[in-house]
Amino acid sequence: MEKELKVRIFDIEVGRCEVTLNEEDARELGIHPKDRVTIFFDSRSATVVLNTAKTVVSGGEIGICTDLAEEYDLKSGDKVQITPAERPKSIEYIRKKMDGLALNESEFEAIVNDVVNNNLSEVEITAFISAIYINQMTVEETAYLAKKTAECGETLDLKRKPVFDKHSLGGVPGNKITLLVVPIVAAAGLTIPKTSSRAITSACGTADIMEVLAPVTFDAREIEAMVNKTNAVIVWGGGANLAPADDIFIRIEHPLAIDPHYLALASVMAKKYAVGAEFVVIDLPMGPETKVKDMKEAKKYARDFIELGEKLGIDVECAVTYGDKPIGRAVGPALEAREALATLEGEHTSTSLVEKATELAGILLEADGAARKGKGKEMALEILKSGAALKKMKEIIEVQGGDPNVTSKDIKVGNYQEKIFSDDEGYVTNISNRAVVRVARRAGAPKDQGAGILFNIRKGEKVEKGALLYEIYSNSEYKLEQAVKLTKQLKPVRLEGMLLERIPDYTVIEK
Amino acid sequence: MEKELKVRIFDIEVGRCEVTLNEEDARELGIHPKDRVTIFFDSRSATVVLNTAKTVVSGGEIGICTDLAEEYDLKSGDKVQITPAERPKSIEYIRKKMDGLALNESEFEAIVNDVVNNNLSEVEITAFISAIYINQMTVEETAYLAKKTAECGETLDLKRKPVFDKHSLGGVPGNKITLLVVPIVAAAGLTIPKTSSRAITSACGTADIMEVLAPVTFDAREIEAMVNKTNAVIVWGGGANLAPADDIFIRIEHPLAIDPHYLALASVMAKKYAVGAEFVVIDLPMGPETKVKDMKEAKKYARDFIELGEKLGIDVECAVTYGDKPIGRAVGPALEAREALATLEGEHTSTSLVEKATELAGILLEADGAARKGKGKEMALEILKSGAALKKMKEIIEVQGGDPNVTSKDIKVGNYQEKIFSDDEGYVTNISNRAVVRVARRAGAPKDQGAGILFNIRKGEKVEKGALLYEIYSNSEYKLEQAVKLTKQLKPVRLEGMLLERIPDYTVIEK
Repeated sequence: MEKELKVRIFDIEVGRCEVTLNEEDARELGIHPKDRVTIFFDSRSATVVLNTAKTVVSGGEIGICTDLAEEYDLKSGDKVQITPAERPKSIEYIRKKMDGLALNESEFEAIVNDVVNNNLSEVEITAFISAIYINQMTVEETAYLAKKTAECGETLDLKRKPVFDKHSLGGVPGNKITLLVVPIVAAAGLTIPKTSSRAITSACGTADIMEVLAPVTFDAREIEAMVNKTNAVIVWGGGANLAPADDIFIRIEHPLAIDPHYLALASVMAKKYAVGAEFVVIDLPMGPETKVKDMKEAKKYARDFIELGEKLGIDVECAVTYGDKPIGRAVGPALEAREALATLEGEHTSTSLVEKATELAGILLEADGAARKGKGKEMALEILKSGAALKKMKEIIEVQGGDPNVTSKDIKVGNYQEKIFSDDEGYVTNISNRAVVRVARRAGAPKDQGAGILFNIRKGEKVEKGALLYEIYSNSEYKLEQAVKLTKQLKPVRLEGMLLERIPDYTVIEK
Repeated sequence: MEKELKVRIFDIEVGRCEVTLNEEDARELGIHPKDRVTIFFDSRSATVVLNTAKTVVSGGEIGICTDLAEEYDLKSGDKVQITPAERPKSIEYIRKKMDGLALNESEFEAIVNDVVNNNLSEVEITAFISAIYINQMTVEETAYLAKKTAECGETLDLKRKPVFDKHSLGGVPGNKITLLVVPIVAAAGLTIPKTSSRAITSACGTADIMEVLAPVTFDAREIEAMVNKTNAVIVWGGGANLAPADDIFIRIEHPLAIDPHYLALASVMAKKYAVGAEFVVIDLPMGPETKVKDMKEAKKYARDFIELGEKLGIDVECAVTYGDKPIGRAVGPALEAREALATLEGEHTSTSLVEKATELAGILLEADGAARKGKGKEMALEILKSGAALKKMKEIIEVQGGDPNVTSKDIKVGNYQEKIFSDDEGYVTNISNRAVVRVARRAGAPKDQGAGILFNIRKGEKVEKGALLYEIYSNSEYKLEQAVKLTKQLKPVRLEGMLLERIPDYTVIEK
């Protein structure tokens, strides 16, 4: 059955592109909301998901979103023909996964392609994610999904091989180590096209920190060209259209607050596969507030990542790291960029920061053969001390369009600061990652690059009553005030003997 | 964190009501698409799901859909405050179901209320439906869900008790028996507030057939008033806001083409609970093209319905009926209304139609005690023959605002007709429900009330070559032509000896 309709273009794009038909017309055609229709015009056609409306679209009209109208050069008043279209095959495969069966490579390909090409609605993608969450996946399925997720977007084709990469499972504030690891290993000649994320719920992502020093938004061809010059970049992954299906999956997982284990693995490895990585070191921060709660979980992650890597032709090494407190002293884009740059400049900033960065860089150096087995960390430390890492970082900043002459002293942090002092004396028994992130965000991070927290104490240290614990920075007086209020409520730094004051515990009131 | 924004009202409602924020503002507030925000204005507030946009909504603006704007009397340019809101508790319960655990009554209540109050997005509702599909439900959970689904909408409070009801699992075209069962049992004094559905993919629903004789859209209070006068009505369920959560669940199941068993049971029983039914007869049409494929499945349905009824305080009796061919001779709103009315007028129309209607009516009469055990069908037949059922039907038509003097002769069927003759001779071995429905829809049913099919033969009958098999009706010459084309392709009537012609089989090419 077919019907001719008059185009009406909406001035708003809501979610995924859909066309809208009057309820009565839909009923006549025997189609439901979320069914597909094929629209014919001139000698072209497009199959899209249908929406229905009672009043907004009149009988005989078809509402078309701006995106689609532009793509197909349709104008209000144009005539089109529509006819019900078949469901994509991928819905059958989603149902197969819902029924507890394993999917093969071509089935994952069909699903991922339909996700990226807007052929599946959110309802259908949610059913797919739910099925993966409930019925899980084998490592083999995970590998198919990762591969297809990578292949549906841009991939990098780099001249300098082998290609190295690093990834952190996250959950730890202050984790600016990428800004050390990348220049260290690149200074030793390794190729490392590092794509990073921006903060969504954290205080800042690596891309937010790097952006203090240089632009981070580049497409895949630009990244290739830059890496061919400098061995390395530190860019925002979201600009390069790598594994775009993954971003769509994440949008669906978020409202459900689920993080299906195998989907998380596929997500990480799809991005590594897309940049052509042959060796990847994965940082697994372990702690009460990270994804990896204990050694048993860490081993499960490591085993799965390594097995998945084997199926994708990527060597993986995992490093379980301390994730129970912030890394280094600074949290927030500019404060972290300054701390990383100062460390590259040779300043003694934070032992834990240098330790973690050189450990991970060492693993990469050994994998490459640049360092002998067991000597990677030592070599990394030498590269850092020699100034070679700083020199490489300046090259990276320059190639990305930043000022290569920038020094840590030049970096502008928040105009307003407030010092937080200890009410008590005792040993620092805990610094809560979640509380630190909430305070830094309340101060304005990551949008306000200058906002954040600078610690004056470290875990295990003895502090006196009245001692400076940390300073909160912001470019907004109001936000600083709010952050101070929040920090007094959450008390991110715990001293021995403070346990009786932990009611109500912020982990309970945490959203 | 809180933010002040300027209202912008969209002139389009797309799906569920959402507010839209510029991406950058959302990032600053640390909220994702599909997170909830609370909007404050004057001394009021509303918590709604958030959408984000790159360009349609500028920084500092908030897009608000027309519905919400009207509800809260907001105008473009008004100032509102927004702040991130917590996720509803019901998401936790959905996740519990995803994790394979059973939910209790208050958990189902929270989910159903949030579904109806737009506090859950489609993603979250889909996860719930998927979890029910994959992890199933116990009958106890199904009862909780049915009860809460009923309680979230309107319920009927009828004076005349007990309240009887009937339901058919569907899948069989021509099934106009409700138009016989209801007046028969109501003539015997039983109370039966029958709510019916409209066709979505079928040729016509009971509400579509009844609408040929009288209006069918009434709210719950109007239904109560009418039933108090006549014992019975035959109305469209969609007008009365009974079990509204169920309609939302169905909208989600449809694109996935899933029909989770226990959700289907909950759906049926929620509506029976909502009308206050104390006894329900359920028609389970069994056949290769209905939901119930064989006796084993029929018994499972019957067992589950009866157990579910016990938990809801509703006596249930199930009747397995032949579902492998259309009921009676007519398919399509006006043709079926005419056939039902003619049967009530005493005309000999179709044995199978009268058989099925009086069997089911008999079960209700026996349940009431109006007929002795084993004598219900006989009594139903007497009521039909005596003209008492016709008299009651006229009362029902009148109370619903139709013309009580209507006769079967007055009913207008399609202006255009085409007779389909047999190419061959032999016994009619099969009449395909699906093919019949597709042809009737192609002819214009249900929107064109006069469209449909009138059979001249029945299953098992011997036909000669050139004999009239059926007639197709339509009010559109073009649609009739299309339906004729389709019927020649699908061949809904199969004769013995035609098996070699069954390639390609239409059940395979069926969408």
